[in-house]
Amino acid sequence: MRKVQKNERIGVISSILTDNPNQIFTLTHFCEVFNCAKSTISEDIDVIKEIFSNYQLGTIETVAGAAGGVYYNPLMNHEQIKNFTDELCEIIDHPDRIIPSGYIYTNDLLYSPQISKKIGTALASLFNGQEIDYVVTVETKGIPIALMTARALNKPMVVVRNQSKLTDGTVIYMNYITGSNNRIKTMCLPTRAIKKGSKVLFIDDFMKAGGTAKGIIDLMQEFQAEMVGVGVLMATKEPHNKLVDDFKTLVWIDNMDEANKKMHIYSAFK
Amino acid sequence: MRKVQKNERIGVISSILTDNPNQIFTLTHFCEVFNCAKSTISEDIDVIKEIFSNYQLGTIETVAGAAGGVYYNPLMNHEQIKNFTDELCEIIDHPDRIIPSGYIYTNDLLYSPQISKKIGTALASLFNGQEIDYVVTVETKGIPIALMTARALNKPMVVVRNQSKLTDGTVIYMNYITGSNNRIKTMCLPTRAIKKGSKVLFIDDFMKAGGTAKGIIDLMQEFQAEMVGVGVLMATKEPHNKLVDDFKTLVWIDNMDEANKKMHIYSAFK
Repeated sequence: MRKVQKNERIGVISSILTDNPNQIFTLTHFCEVFNCAKSTISEDIDVIKEIFSNYQLGTIETVAGAAGGVYYNPLMNHEQIKNFTDELCEIIDHPDRIIPSGYIYTNDLLYSPQISKKIGTALASLFNGQEIDYVVTVETKGIPIALMTARALNKPMVVVRNQSKLTDGTVIYMNYITGSNNRIKTMCLPTRAIKKGSKVLFIDDFMKAGGTAKGIIDLMQEFQAEMVGVGVLMATKEPHNKLVDDFKTLVWIDNMDEANKKMHIYSAFK
Repeated sequence: MRKVQKNERIGVISSILTDNPNQIFTLTHFCEVFNCAKSTISEDIDVIKEIFSNYQLGTIETVAGAAGGVYYNPLMNHEQIKNFTDELCEIIDHPDRIIPSGYIYTNDLLYSPQISKKIGTALASLFNGQEIDYVVTVETKGIPIALMTARALNKPMVVVRNQSKLTDGTVIYMNYITGSNNRIKTMCLPTRAIKKGSKVLFIDDFMKAGGTAKGIIDLMQEFQAEMVGVGVLMATKEPHNKLVDDFKTLVWIDNMDEANKKMHIYSAFK
């Protein structure tokens, strides 16, 4: 068998790392794949680290020690998030998207694999370095961006539902009050979905008064889990006082004017 | 500026293609990125094509002509799908997963970014080469694998809901009868979600009698769209006569024995 060339190894390793964000691969694994020495793989990783940095593809991180290895963090920097959210605002800011009752149609964006992946990666980047065990969302529209956030962080996603299904097994049910219009709603989650003592990140597509996020905080307490972050795609400027103190949004919405089909939507990044 | 080396170009192109399944990049795009000749990029692509094939990372396809370029198809071959579904069956086939009423708990698998990505890529591989405009699913549990199927195919996902929301705008509502227990349920979809004359692939996590898939076929007719394929993660052997004739499943479930917490679950691939 001919020796595998350096550019071949670099291509394969770059593809595998990119395809598996935040998964650690041991150097020994790649030694076996290419039948070569550890020092050779080490040199390859150094090249990959540099090119990922130079071409802003995210970062390649190495972990020392017995459980050590190399992994890909699809981190977007401030400028990349700003550019992406600016583009997104331009797409969202269209009169056709304003629907009766003053909401914005965003299904096509949230359900686009390309866009949801970028939103998820941007949201994951905002919580980079934080200890997170689960990415929690509530059905339905937030699921794709929560899944893509979970993919970027390589953590399991958990979906809170409004009604439980037979396949959920035993669930914890909770009533909560929506912040916007004071309606009573229910949310539920299988008892086995989250381990005690976990730290969770809540991801959703939209926040107005923050009632859902507040509900999730309360529900997490039933699981003896702690909410360590809240990230949303879009948040409204009003009401200013929301039911959760601390959250991050990619995009702000202000001055929705349904009658004139106008709104002010802008990136949260300058 | 120093000349970019071949192994650097191959690493960057491999990463970008992997990260964007079924998206065509022009060779000119990469020429600009690296400030080099088209013939150079052509040679790089040849190397990448070969290593992706050798290491079974999917296929690199080139498209000739004005709109031409190169793209990555994350195609799994028969053996890869078989190995993956065998592993999956081993994980699913555990007494703890059988919950009262004879259902199987799979939320943790469906909501895992790693596993849902593999399921989606496997399902996409089964419909490789077919003309598809949208990947359609019905809320809630099928969404992650449908999104990952849509990602592999680079097509938009559409989520049919049981109840419409304010943010859906105008919707088409349809009543349908579940195949398993003859209950009347509703499904709805925003009128703007699917263009007339589209071809859609329906993806779901589970099929028993096929009532949901049949409902989606009927709903698609309201949109003058055609269902060209049905793919599910798991299907039950019984009832043998399902409400849809033609579907593909990754895994079969047979002889569910709730009392003894036993089931027979096996890959659809030999």
